[in-house]
Amino acid sequence: MEELVKVEPISGFPEWLPNLRLLEERFIATIREQYQLFGFTPVETPAVERMEVLAAKGGIQRQIYTLGRPEEDGEEREKTGLGLHFDLTVPLARYVVQHAEELIFPFRRYQIQKVWRGERAQKARFREFYQCDIDVIGRGTLERIHDAEMPCVINAVFTALGVPEFQIRISNRKILSDLLAARGGAGQQYQDVLRAIDKSHSQGIETARKLLEQQQLDSGMISAILDLIRCGSLDEARQVLGNVGASTAGLEELQFVMESAVALGMTPARMRPDFSIARGLDYYTSTIYETFILGREELGSICSGGRYDDLASFFTKQKYPGVGISIGLSRLLEIMLTAGSLNPTAKVPSKVLVTTLDRDAYLREYLTLARELREAGIPTEVYYERHGLRDQIGYASSNGIRLAVIFGENEAKQNTVAIRDMESRKQEIVARTDFVSLVQRKLGL
Amino acid sequence: MEELVKVEPISGFPEWLPNLRLLEERFIATIREQYQLFGFTPVETPAVERMEVLAAKGGIQRQIYTLGRPEEDGEEREKTGLGLHFDLTVPLARYVVQHAEELIFPFRRYQIQKVWRGERAQKARFREFYQCDIDVIGRGTLERIHDAEMPCVINAVFTALGVPEFQIRISNRKILSDLLAARGGAGQQYQDVLRAIDKSHSQGIETARKLLEQQQLDSGMISAILDLIRCGSLDEARQVLGNVGASTAGLEELQFVMESAVALGMTPARMRPDFSIARGLDYYTSTIYETFILGREELGSICSGGRYDDLASFFTKQKYPGVGISIGLSRLLEIMLTAGSLNPTAKVPSKVLVTTLDRDAYLREYLTLARELREAGIPTEVYYERHGLRDQIGYASSNGIRLAVIFGENEAKQNTVAIRDMESRKQEIVARTDFVSLVQRKLGL
Repeated sequence: MEELVKVEPISGFPEWLPNLRLLEERFIATIREQYQLFGFTPVETPAVERMEVLAAKGGIQRQIYTLGRPEEDGEEREKTGLGLHFDLTVPLARYVVQHAEELIFPFRRYQIQKVWRGERAQKARFREFYQCDIDVIGRGTLERIHDAEMPCVINAVFTALGVPEFQIRISNRKILSDLLAARGGAGQQYQDVLRAIDKSHSQGIETARKLLEQQQLDSGMISAILDLIRCGSLDEARQVLGNVGASTAGLEELQFVMESAVALGMTPARMRPDFSIARGLDYYTSTIYETFILGREELGSICSGGRYDDLASFFTKQKYPGVGISIGLSRLLEIMLTAGSLNPTAKVPSKVLVTTLDRDAYLREYLTLARELREAGIPTEVYYERHGLRDQIGYASSNGIRLAVIFGENEAKQNTVAIRDMESRKQEIVARTDFVSLVQRKLGL
Repeated sequence: MEELVKVEPISGFPEWLPNLRLLEERFIATIREQYQLFGFTPVETPAVERMEVLAAKGGIQRQIYTLGRPEEDGEEREKTGLGLHFDLTVPLARYVVQHAEELIFPFRRYQIQKVWRGERAQKARFREFYQCDIDVIGRGTLERIHDAEMPCVINAVFTALGVPEFQIRISNRKILSDLLAARGGAGQQYQDVLRAIDKSHSQGIETARKLLEQQQLDSGMISAILDLIRCGSLDEARQVLGNVGASTAGLEELQFVMESAVALGMTPARMRPDFSIARGLDYYTSTIYETFILGREELGSICSGGRYDDLASFFTKQKYPGVGISIGLSRLLEIMLTAGSLNPTAKVPSKVLVTTLDRDAYLREYLTLARELREAGIPTEVYYERHGLRDQIGYASSNGIRLAVIFGENEAKQNTVAIRDMESRKQEIVARTDFVSLVQRKLGL
């Protein structure tokens, strides 16, 4: 007798039971639909890229999962040189450069795929998770106004998903460089100041002040920076910039983007300027976005992005400026489940279970009832196992199926069908001919 | 100056341009919708399984892509012991055993995911491709009638996809074993005879006869086998079985499955018994299915499956009988593209392009027009770049966008909007208030 292979979960690779997978799939379908509504076109790249493409960006290389085949020794594996993608931005950059002559610019693409990261297990992070990205890519140039669409897309997606109160925080990195430029600051100083601002979230404004004091900054500039990140409006920020004689070019960009977003339908109350958001990624160059659930800000941003000058500098000398956002699907689902905003009782998509009270006598009738419901677009199952009605009703109940159809000797004689509402436990007898329309009414269709 | 990383395709890892990806995504959405209509619930397993799980089945092991991280040496990689799944059946078996106590049986699941196979490059096969599977899994037992639903699901999916004339061929492996049992044949002989029958497709009936003659079979049995695989109906097969005094138990099963399928709504003309189909996989034990495009039979089956007695014998002693099918999405798309059944001119999901004739004067109006269309559920883009109208119309045309909206000084004065049909090149002026409804009408919504 062969030994059985042990079956157990792999840390970092989540797997849902059907009720949560149903939710996840509904979320993905809604995100896709909203992305398409804004004209973004689907792209899917292979899970696999050449190692030199994945490593071009640097930094993350140790986390890449490399690929080999069992019969390959180390050297041959080196030659294969393939790995799993760790985000969707590097594959997008490669895709755009590889297919540039066949794409039409500006190129608006969405991409919803799993990514893989060989994180250390003790971090308790996912090693496989979904990213849901959109980007608009220009060749050479890209108009500023594209930045205004991103908040509208987030707003449309989150509203369609039923995300509770959320707020998009928006800023522009040029505002800080405008401020620093007023005293001749730039380059490395800019990066260090950004880092200090970022620390103000996790460690408070006093830590940020101390970090700023370590820079070559006069006390007026330090005050101005700290004033700026506490500003709640464009007007307040304009005053801070004015006080030190800084340019307001970045601020005007931000104002244009925010006003255009409102014209495009953005709910004003769901968007506010926040001069304290920094975004870790170096490659953003002006507009940046973060999105928070109100009251759950400590969980971090669930949708972030920004504008960048150059998508594909590792692969080509041609400039591809762009703007994009990425929704953190796993985190979003988790937040909504914890908040009780979702009620994942359904374990199957079926809305109706056709029970089989007397299979030997009425099998054809059961099959016909199921067919009629499916032809009306109603997800339907037939209970085929030879169990009593009680077990069959129990199956519907455990699976969260809304209606059970019952048909036996009485119904056959009277040319009727019984429909049981699984929640109210009430049963209704309906003429055979009205059967489908009653089911539709009960399901609110 | 850093050197640029070269960008090129990886053999065996296909990547579509947006027009084909749009089609592929529409196909997947339709398949998902139809699977759900029959009450199948979504399952997604990680791309990654433990090597011992993947290797349990044997045979395919050399094709498995193993996973490592760049900093790992060979030994540590050995310990990691992870690989990419090469089909969705092994993950399903592992999932069912691992979550058995939380699942409700019969468990009806669908699973649409990429799988990976480290095929040798010279075979010119895909190394990454989609599988679209459904299975019904029982615990201990599973009623025969589930087999009748599979042809109905295939029929519903292919009809919804607009697949041209197709036919499902259906058989039952017990029929052949019934036949052999009439002369005491079983076991290895059964496998060898199956192999001979399989050869009859590629190398003709005479090759099959020669192979059969190498077995311990009398000439009456050889004739009976060859007669059987040429039978076009259940009645003919019944006669062949009767001639040698064989049991008709397998044939009765097949008849029950086919008749039940028709009661469930299966189009009779799209299903026929075919006693020559063998299916390579050993684990099928009774009903088997293959699906062909009429006139393109040489391309092989585009949807196959069958009934098996034991899904998870490598992982548990509990019996999990099941029945399932798998659609070969890539092959199906290829066949339909070659046949010209699909016309992939659209490169974006947008149905309307709002052009910007005079961006400086009317930007807000353009944004409002786009918003109104999106609120009506119509995928819409705005052309934001500062190019002439001719270029903008060219953009709509190259992308296969159906309508272009034009608004300038005249339209502003008269409170109208111009709508250009990109195909007929005809332009229509419409009152501003009737704008959305005319667009809807022109799109046939």
